[in-house]
Amino acid sequence: MRIALAQFNPIVGDLSGNIARIKTFAQQAKQENADLVVFPELAVCGYPPEDLLDMDDFVPACMAEVERLALECGLSLPAILIGSPWKNPEPQGKPFQNCALLLDEGKIIARQAKCLLPDYDIFDEYRYFEPGTSTQIIKWRGLQLGVLICEDAWTFPSGLDAPKHLQRREAGSLYDYDPVDELSQQNAELLICISASPFSLLQEERRLRILSQAAMHAACPLVYVNQVGAHTSLLFDGNSMILDANGQVRHLLPFFEEKLEVVNATELYSPGHYLTWPQKPETEKLYTALVVGLREYFQKNGFKSAVLGLSGGIDSALVAALAADALGPENVYGVRLPSPYSSQHSLDDAEELANNLGIHCRTIPVESLHTESLKVLNPWFGNTASGLAEENLQSRLRGLLLMAISNKEGHLLLNTTNKSEAAVGYGTLYGDMCGALSVLGDVYKLEVWEISRFVNRNGVRIPVNSIEKEPSAELKPGQRDTDSLPDYTELDPVLFALIEEQLSPQSLIRKGHDEHLVKKVAGLIRRAEYKRYQMAPVLRVHDKAFGSGRRWPLTARYSL
Amino acid sequence: MRIALAQFNPIVGDLSGNIARIKTFAQQAKQENADLVVFPELAVCGYPPEDLLDMDDFVPACMAEVERLALECGLSLPAILIGSPWKNPEPQGKPFQNCALLLDEGKIIARQAKCLLPDYDIFDEYRYFEPGTSTQIIKWRGLQLGVLICEDAWTFPSGLDAPKHLQRREAGSLYDYDPVDELSQQNAELLICISASPFSLLQEERRLRILSQAAMHAACPLVYVNQVGAHTSLLFDGNSMILDANGQVRHLLPFFEEKLEVVNATELYSPGHYLTWPQKPETEKLYTALVVGLREYFQKNGFKSAVLGLSGGIDSALVAALAADALGPENVYGVRLPSPYSSQHSLDDAEELANNLGIHCRTIPVESLHTESLKVLNPWFGNTASGLAEENLQSRLRGLLLMAISNKEGHLLLNTTNKSEAAVGYGTLYGDMCGALSVLGDVYKLEVWEISRFVNRNGVRIPVNSIEKEPSAELKPGQRDTDSLPDYTELDPVLFALIEEQLSPQSLIRKGHDEHLVKKVAGLIRRAEYKRYQMAPVLRVHDKAFGSGRRWPLTARYSL
Repeated sequence: MRIALAQFNPIVGDLSGNIARIKTFAQQAKQENADLVVFPELAVCGYPPEDLLDMDDFVPACMAEVERLALECGLSLPAILIGSPWKNPEPQGKPFQNCALLLDEGKIIARQAKCLLPDYDIFDEYRYFEPGTSTQIIKWRGLQLGVLICEDAWTFPSGLDAPKHLQRREAGSLYDYDPVDELSQQNAELLICISASPFSLLQEERRLRILSQAAMHAACPLVYVNQVGAHTSLLFDGNSMILDANGQVRHLLPFFEEKLEVVNATELYSPGHYLTWPQKPETEKLYTALVVGLREYFQKNGFKSAVLGLSGGIDSALVAALAADALGPENVYGVRLPSPYSSQHSLDDAEELANNLGIHCRTIPVESLHTESLKVLNPWFGNTASGLAEENLQSRLRGLLLMAISNKEGHLLLNTTNKSEAAVGYGTLYGDMCGALSVLGDVYKLEVWEISRFVNRNGVRIPVNSIEKEPSAELKPGQRDTDSLPDYTELDPVLFALIEEQLSPQSLIRKGHDEHLVKKVAGLIRRAEYKRYQMAPVLRVHDKAFGSGRRWPLTARYSL
Repeated sequence: MRIALAQFNPIVGDLSGNIARIKTFAQQAKQENADLVVFPELAVCGYPPEDLLDMDDFVPACMAEVERLALECGLSLPAILIGSPWKNPEPQGKPFQNCALLLDEGKIIARQAKCLLPDYDIFDEYRYFEPGTSTQIIKWRGLQLGVLICEDAWTFPSGLDAPKHLQRREAGSLYDYDPVDELSQQNAELLICISASPFSLLQEERRLRILSQAAMHAACPLVYVNQVGAHTSLLFDGNSMILDANGQVRHLLPFFEEKLEVVNATELYSPGHYLTWPQKPETEKLYTALVVGLREYFQKNGFKSAVLGLSGGIDSALVAALAADALGPENVYGVRLPSPYSSQHSLDDAEELANNLGIHCRTIPVESLHTESLKVLNPWFGNTASGLAEENLQSRLRGLLLMAISNKEGHLLLNTTNKSEAAVGYGTLYGDMCGALSVLGDVYKLEVWEISRFVNRNGVRIPVNSIEKEPSAELKPGQRDTDSLPDYTELDPVLFALIEEQLSPQSLIRKGHDEHLVKKVAGLIRRAEYKRYQMAPVLRVHDKAFGSGRRWPLTARYSL
């Protein structure tokens, strides 16, 4: 029995395009004598299809594609196991199910519905799907096959492998049913888990632990096939793998690369070579994820080039470097937008960066526009003290000029806000918060520095001065981030606890954090909720990114 | 038995503030000799609390508040039935439940968990809550009491009362369990349904039909207590009511007003006076909902005054009128921002509007800034033809100036984009799409005209010319909306079918809509998804508003 793992990169909604590429993979697998090709969860429509599922024609079209594909399976193509939304056969409950379909003998020979539907963080599966209520062994070519769909293997035993904010369950599982256990009771001989499990920094190891437990619990090998690529905020790292009955990794597909690999399943039942999990430094993982997320957003949306403001600071420098690596330096257009408060070193650092990276660079001073704006507003601003309004004007003029270049030349504007800034609202809405995609919106400031050093691992690309100098928005004379914010070494750990771990300020204070600092930071986060509501989509690399995974009320008053 | 219906307006997250006001209501009910005061679903924390529920201290704090409140109930206060999140007593499943608690004799004497958890459109209850699995009669003061929580009464028999996009179930229910039927089997003598059911234009009648069916099915009176007020996008109309066993309305609380009403329940079991449902014109309902939503957003977020651009067109005119009615004309600051392409009638119409409404009005020409922008950009724009980039510049300069006024004077900027424009992307991101709140983002253009006429019902407030003239963005000479868009009488019905009914373009064409028109409009909607992602929160008045209720992928390719 030869099984092909198709670590597939679909495009959401592109049914005919996805099917065409699925067939190409299947043909390649046939050439390598595969008996079965396994594709990820919802591979036909891509994950997550979101409200496309509610459109009246969508699920019927997915089903029709699968039915047509089945005509070739086990005949001109190998058998295929693939994910697709499917009509719920029961008259009660949600209209659809998230299904795995086994295609062989020119038809659909088995269907298994996903039983555990994630409905936390960025997941909304219960919005669309009726859960399956049991998991049945499929007897196929003499094999007792157990099919799982992603979360079905994820029963969070004792909560220890759940993301932090799901560990509220001190004992017990998030679900009252365990498909792995049921398949184990039915003497499964091979588990296949099709998946669309997004990347986060902690997810790679967590996933390995959970799958390893599942294989050991069922005492049989487990084939895990994950989606790869990116859809806006959600990055899919692949890392498809095969574990043996001891929960040891026998095969591993690459991190963030589309790949087909054919494996002789029979060998999994004999002792064989174990792989040691390739430990990668966190900064390298973050770097790769961000480059892939950026590249895919452009490719899948039909854009080639990016524009961004180069302030001379570290955030824009890192975004420029990531964009150069993702899109090619010839497709990155930097713009220096100096004001009278910009220091000469900012201009120099930006120029050095552009030279190092080989990206385009031009300079458009904002001074004359700032002066004209103040003149036009003078009847209303009069002799009031210069403050937030005047600072924001500079930032918004930069946004305006960058969007003008974007509109005129057809480059997408990259946002350079980092997660620490987005958290505390240290940014100007419609100013430096402009952009089609927030590259660093889930990257804390301390991580921005670390990734920048990683970018320089083989020689200076980001100017050392940009990495080492003190952060400043340069919106007024001598301004420093620390004028209004705590030092990032103090700020970031508090942000992490409040956002990723969803601890309340009171809990943090009880754990020994400084009360004044915690209350200040919690207040800043709360008051910036309205800004993040209008923020660009963020490449998600942590367990709790700003965006659809974090749903906080704008109109609220709470003091915990 | 005297029952008080407390149509309560909570603030999300404000536990101590909500409890203080709950006690005030309860004291008032006691003065009117009530035996029981009924508060809405999740009244302790307000609906919807969203991810506040995930914060480690939040649900324990809600529970502690209810336990403290219980100490007074049946003693210094009447008995209370109230909604609160509660710890799931089972070790498996989600950590919390959405519960109703009956407080009497100084303690919690009964608890009922919500069984049917809505997880569609703007609802995410399965994200947080484990559903209850049965509904048990509460024997209380000699009465067989059945307690339902909102959706528990909403079993969508035969799908006919579901919003359009949930009618996919040709037969059968969205749920496989019917709490009303179970309570009926147990011989309920009184049903009480606590609720937080948001307003939409079609919801008022739908809700009445469903509650009427529930009362008739259980053959006993039904007391329905709904939340009132607004939280950002979600507007709650109240309309709490009592129906008798024949499903007839015997008591009705006001539309969009907080109110306590005490009723002698005993009378419900004898024939009595039926109320005819007060039919209100759709425009009047929309007007009231928008004024309440606008006022509440300002009040609950601690703002008093609004600023907006007055173009002379109908959208900004209507928003100004709604703001004047919601906040008082003295708190509304209009700004005329003419460019060389602005017509004299636009300036005149804006001035007449401001005079009619009694709002502030000032004029800030954008011409000099537009000229300076083009000068600064000239090295890059050169001799290229004037187009989208130059048009957007004007719009963004207006956004910049309005935000400057907002920052300097402390007024919230109101967005004036209507739903038709937002749908097809006829608006400039960071330009006229700026604003803290989108007042008309769920109001189709044809409705904008209708509501404007309603605003003028007792005399002209919105200039007749603003209502009657042809719509134009005035971003280039002689521009008309119809240069790039179909006439709104053609556009709006297609938008309604694609958005509210979630029909696919192909379905619309099969139903006889013009193929060219449908494909053009569908393409425009798809390509504007990225703009709406960064749009201000929208006051929701239809079944499918832009915002959290409509989750479409940004990175997608579909051709249905």
